[in-house]
Amino acid sequence: MENLGYYNGKFGPCEEMTIPMNDRVCYFGDGVYDATYSRNYKIFALDEHVDRIFNSARLLEIPVPMSKQEMKDLLYEMVNKMDTGENFVYWQLTRGTGMRNHIFPQDGSKANVWITIKHLDIKDTYAKIKLITMEDTRFLHCNIKTLNLLPSVIASQRALEAKCDETVFHRGDRVTECAHSNVHIIKNGVFRTAPTDNLILPGIARAHLIKACKALGIPVDETPFTLAELFDADEVIVSSSGSLCLSAVEIDGKAVAGKAPELLKKIQDYVYNEFMEQTNA
Amino acid sequence: MENLGYYNGKFGPCEEMTIPMNDRVCYFGDGVYDATYSRNYKIFALDEHVDRIFNSARLLEIPVPMSKQEMKDLLYEMVNKMDTGENFVYWQLTRGTGMRNHIFPQDGSKANVWITIKHLDIKDTYAKIKLITMEDTRFLHCNIKTLNLLPSVIASQRALEAKCDETVFHRGDRVTECAHSNVHIIKNGVFRTAPTDNLILPGIARAHLIKACKALGIPVDETPFTLAELFDADEVIVSSSGSLCLSAVEIDGKAVAGKAPELLKKIQDYVYNEFMEQTNA
Repeated sequence: MENLGYYNGKFGPCEEMTIPMNDRVCYFGDGVYDATYSRNYKIFALDEHVDRIFNSARLLEIPVPMSKQEMKDLLYEMVNKMDTGENFVYWQLTRGTGMRNHIFPQDGSKANVWITIKHLDIKDTYAKIKLITMEDTRFLHCNIKTLNLLPSVIASQRALEAKCDETVFHRGDRVTECAHSNVHIIKNGVFRTAPTDNLILPGIARAHLIKACKALGIPVDETPFTLAELFDADEVIVSSSGSLCLSAVEIDGKAVAGKAPELLKKIQDYVYNEFMEQTNA
Repeated sequence: MENLGYYNGKFGPCEEMTIPMNDRVCYFGDGVYDATYSRNYKIFALDEHVDRIFNSARLLEIPVPMSKQEMKDLLYEMVNKMDTGENFVYWQLTRGTGMRNHIFPQDGSKANVWITIKHLDIKDTYAKIKLITMEDTRFLHCNIKTLNLLPSVIASQRALEAKCDETVFHRGDRVTECAHSNVHIIKNGVFRTAPTDNLILPGIARAHLIKACKALGIPVDETPFTLAELFDADEVIVSSSGSLCLSAVEIDGKAVAGKAPELLKKIQDYVYNEFMEQTNA
């Protein structure tokens, strides 16, 4: 299959799948998701992603209808139906089904389980990207991976229109994260990244970058940095599950970074090799 | 019919209707909505609600696939299929269908059109309600009626658990609005309501209250008020399309308001009579 959709036990091509009009995602975006990649039919960092979606669901009090092991088994069952082992593996949990009503379902019903899988390789880790910046107007629950993503939709569209790859959000002067990635800088040999408060997603690629830095003896500083520090950084790094450690060369049309290429490459090699080793056939 | 769902030309009972898994509402909450009530098969303030959803769509660059007149005709066509003329009339526009991708659909496709109608009377305008308060952690686009409603879902659930009717949001000390209503106060004979900036929805019931006050010679002050002023108000009013002018008697367990009952009743009578007259058989 080129792609595969799953909803509460039914599966088929995403384009042919339907879901109930009264799934609460339709009226409230009432759900959480997670996503990672598979290679050689091995799903990268699956334990961490399953832990995170369970945590997202817990923070919003969405009752998950299966155990972590059952979720992992189900994801593998679906990935194994694909024609190729290299896929974007996405899944979400939505807060039940019923006539539109803000309050939680009162019938004790559990979450609906969704999966979509499509053939896709991770991005070239060593590619150079361009960014734009935008005021971060999102809600104050960015630590939860929810389906309330309108600001990220708009920011991604703005990046596309500017012929750029991602949008860096900032609250006033403070850089938070990107529309669908975390953002970090290297300055004077230190890896600097915003702390995991309610303003950013605790990225799993971010956690792997921190682990890589620690293994490589590179100091890590988890304090917020400013727009001025972003523009003045030695390197600017954008990370997500599909783009392990991309480096930016331009922000808002201005040339940036490129001043610590060897350090950057060490980190890139580390996370790239980790991904490849853990997904070897 | 007890209720009726509509999606892009198909209709039937909401519980039986399905929609494509790849509607962008499913992954991003990528859409806008509006809602009002019908009585005697007459839809109240329909022009204003249609104007507002067109404005919400414009602000998010969602291409509406019909004219305002076509939307009104379609809503009437669906309302007229109901067994009774007293209904909650809800409709939404979502940004097309396609494999999950943050950027807008690149095929020029227009919005998907949804309607749900269910038999429901407006609330008793003269009922007394109880409120709780909660920090407003929503995004900074509350002037747009979007489907990114998770904070309102949580706030409504919290109100239910406290055996209350609505939740008043505040950003720090400043009162904004409720989870699915606007909130206003009367103090020293003046009707006070937050201005329509990006922190509140420009409520249509709110606009009708302001019009009522002006007709009744009651001064209107559109400046933000604080939590302290809310607790100290002569009357506290909560308004939405289904609750034209409810008054609160308790907030966070403390007795409030009830100090200007005659003025309150004048306003309630005005908006209640307006609703009844405009929806007469």
